[in-house]
Amino acid sequence: MSRIVQKFGGTSVADVERIKNAARRVKQEVDNGSQVAVVVSAMAGVTDRMVELTADISSMFDAREYDAVAATGEQATAGLMALALQDLGIASRSWLGWQIPIRTDGAHGKARIREIETGELNRRLAAGEVPVVAGFQGLGPDNRITTIGRGGSDTSAVALAGALGADRCDIYTDVDGIYTSDPRIVAKARKLDRITYEEMLEMASLGAKVLQTRSVELAMNQKVPLQVRSTFVDAPGTFVVSEDEIVEQQVVSGISHSGDEAKITLLRVADRPGVAAGIFGPLADANVNVDMIVQNVSEDGATTDLTFTVGQGELESAVRVLEDRKAEVGFEKIDADSNVCKISVVGVGMRSHAGVAQTMFRALAEKGINIQVISTSEIKVSVLIAADYTELALRALHTAYGLDDE
Amino acid sequence: MSRIVQKFGGTSVADVERIKNAARRVKQEVDNGSQVAVVVSAMAGVTDRMVELTADISSMFDAREYDAVAATGEQATAGLMALALQDLGIASRSWLGWQIPIRTDGAHGKARIREIETGELNRRLAAGEVPVVAGFQGLGPDNRITTIGRGGSDTSAVALAGALGADRCDIYTDVDGIYTSDPRIVAKARKLDRITYEEMLEMASLGAKVLQTRSVELAMNQKVPLQVRSTFVDAPGTFVVSEDEIVEQQVVSGISHSGDEAKITLLRVADRPGVAAGIFGPLADANVNVDMIVQNVSEDGATTDLTFTVGQGELESAVRVLEDRKAEVGFEKIDADSNVCKISVVGVGMRSHAGVAQTMFRALAEKGINIQVISTSEIKVSVLIAADYTELALRALHTAYGLDDE
Repeated sequence: MSRIVQKFGGTSVADVERIKNAARRVKQEVDNGSQVAVVVSAMAGVTDRMVELTADISSMFDAREYDAVAATGEQATAGLMALALQDLGIASRSWLGWQIPIRTDGAHGKARIREIETGELNRRLAAGEVPVVAGFQGLGPDNRITTIGRGGSDTSAVALAGALGADRCDIYTDVDGIYTSDPRIVAKARKLDRITYEEMLEMASLGAKVLQTRSVELAMNQKVPLQVRSTFVDAPGTFVVSEDEIVEQQVVSGISHSGDEAKITLLRVADRPGVAAGIFGPLADANVNVDMIVQNVSEDGATTDLTFTVGQGELESAVRVLEDRKAEVGFEKIDADSNVCKISVVGVGMRSHAGVAQTMFRALAEKGINIQVISTSEIKVSVLIAADYTELALRALHTAYGLDDE
Repeated sequence: MSRIVQKFGGTSVADVERIKNAARRVKQEVDNGSQVAVVVSAMAGVTDRMVELTADISSMFDAREYDAVAATGEQATAGLMALALQDLGIASRSWLGWQIPIRTDGAHGKARIREIETGELNRRLAAGEVPVVAGFQGLGPDNRITTIGRGGSDTSAVALAGALGADRCDIYTDVDGIYTSDPRIVAKARKLDRITYEEMLEMASLGAKVLQTRSVELAMNQKVPLQVRSTFVDAPGTFVVSEDEIVEQQVVSGISHSGDEAKITLLRVADRPGVAAGIFGPLADANVNVDMIVQNVSEDGATTDLTFTVGQGELESAVRVLEDRKAEVGFEKIDADSNVCKISVVGVGMRSHAGVAQTMFRALAEKGINIQVISTSEIKVSVLIAADYTELALRALHTAYGLDDE
């Protein structure tokens, strides 16, 4: 008998009708003879409202109270989903983080799951009951509610699937799977049947915001097969699995893009040891995440140009931090440009195939698209280009790597 | 050092500004040197919305899931109030029913509080911290959230005040106290400085819906002095206390009215033993609450007329139940009238003063108001009159008993 964890996101439980629809998805699996545990998010918009209330009421931020307030959304959905399942004739009850308990560390607002007690849940599952678990929340060492960060219900579901030894964790959402590229831009994008955890991690962190990154890491570590699928369309989605479960591996699985990038170039930086630390240390202190970094070869042996990217929301503070340290760091000028886009080709097949980057550079060159910055990892090549060329680049690359839907 | 429990109702915490205002009321008591514990309701409207969701989602009613959903409102307010207090420089944290715990029986949806563990709360109070307790909720023997019935936060507050040995339980609401009569109708109504628990019970059950009846019973049993006062006006309210704490007791303390009444008269009922049981048994089975009952003296020795009142919302089903049993019970005709009002004069002084009812009957007669039904208790006389005369009757009685504000 198979055991499945089904997780429903905020848009899948946004109102009474949608909760009932999600309950019918659960019933399908129960009718198939599976043991099913359900994890639910808050109804769409509820957590935002709660977070706004906590921000409006106090200039202080007590993460313990934030957690008590924010966790109410999933609590309500869990009760409602259990009722909807009962209405379909399925034995079901809601489980809150503290009732199971899902034990976390004490880092309120961004806690990590330490341990899930599964004895009672296992008994109930074996008896045919469907536990509906409130996502996003756990119990801290202080006997108070903890939450595990926005989007955390994906992580709750994967952790539960791991603890219960589930055969699969299905993430129900408002898209029907993972695509080779953004289908709103690339008309010939195809839905992938399978993708590896590593590729999904690269895609997730590159702006394909279907799954929370932490949940993919956890699934990879605990070897929990994930399926990303639609709550609204009854069709298989995309399976996220280990590399060894994919027989015919494409060299490139997908092409993603992120428009939330800004490029900073420091001109004529003094070329001496310690200068990089002098630049990136203060940025880290100011909570600026730096992504791609390129240092040009020094022409005169005394100065160099340094280019890197940050999130657009952090551009202003990054520039301010650097201007404040201009003399200290020793550079002549800052250029900032937020009209850029990062395009990445991702695929575990790159490990064994040469020429992947070359295909990219040639395809872009043929369209006359200038590459500003390049960075690579084991299974990814990313380039920064002018934002105006985003659509053109995505479509050209999609064709160049043979991904087009025929 | 005095110890106070302050309870804030739904309208007092309806939005961020009102929660902040309520927090300032807490600060006043803290600044006065009192130890303060706070009990909060859900923000106005929130519980209604939650209850509606549970009703919309399922034709089944699982009170355990209802409780998990409904209790979220108070949970959120507790966290928000703790944040508002911290913002005023007051050490504070939220406490949920299961964290204290407030142990209840297992009657989900209408649980009774069995025991409140106060060890940790006492330590925190002694250290100057203000615990903010989520009202309406507790922990059942099944380790699940229980709720104690609508309006239950009053009862939570009184139970907590009793358990903590508080000197006073202040119920903050949107009225500034208990009045001798409804001030919207009787312009000369006065705010009472003090009223006894017994009188408050009669007033509460008669439509003066300021306090939940159960909370008054509990306060009386545990000898917790209550104060009903306004969150929005900084003035003393009305104290609800034991009879022995009121030195100059008025004969009549107040005059209340209830328009939610309907009168049913059964004409020519067979006058034989068991007939009353044959009528009221089926009504009780149909969950119809019968209030005043009058049986006229039989004229012919064979039949009698029987009159009683029910809530207006139950009139239709009461008539249906009786029509279904017409032959069995043995009556000729049903008269139903929902255009009636119950007027009651209440006062513990009645016990030692004769003539209270006579004053009432004479005052109504002088205004030409016909009395349809009379019922009395130790500290109350109630009459049923045509609804059109409600205002006239209230004002006449208010004057007749010397209650008018000069």
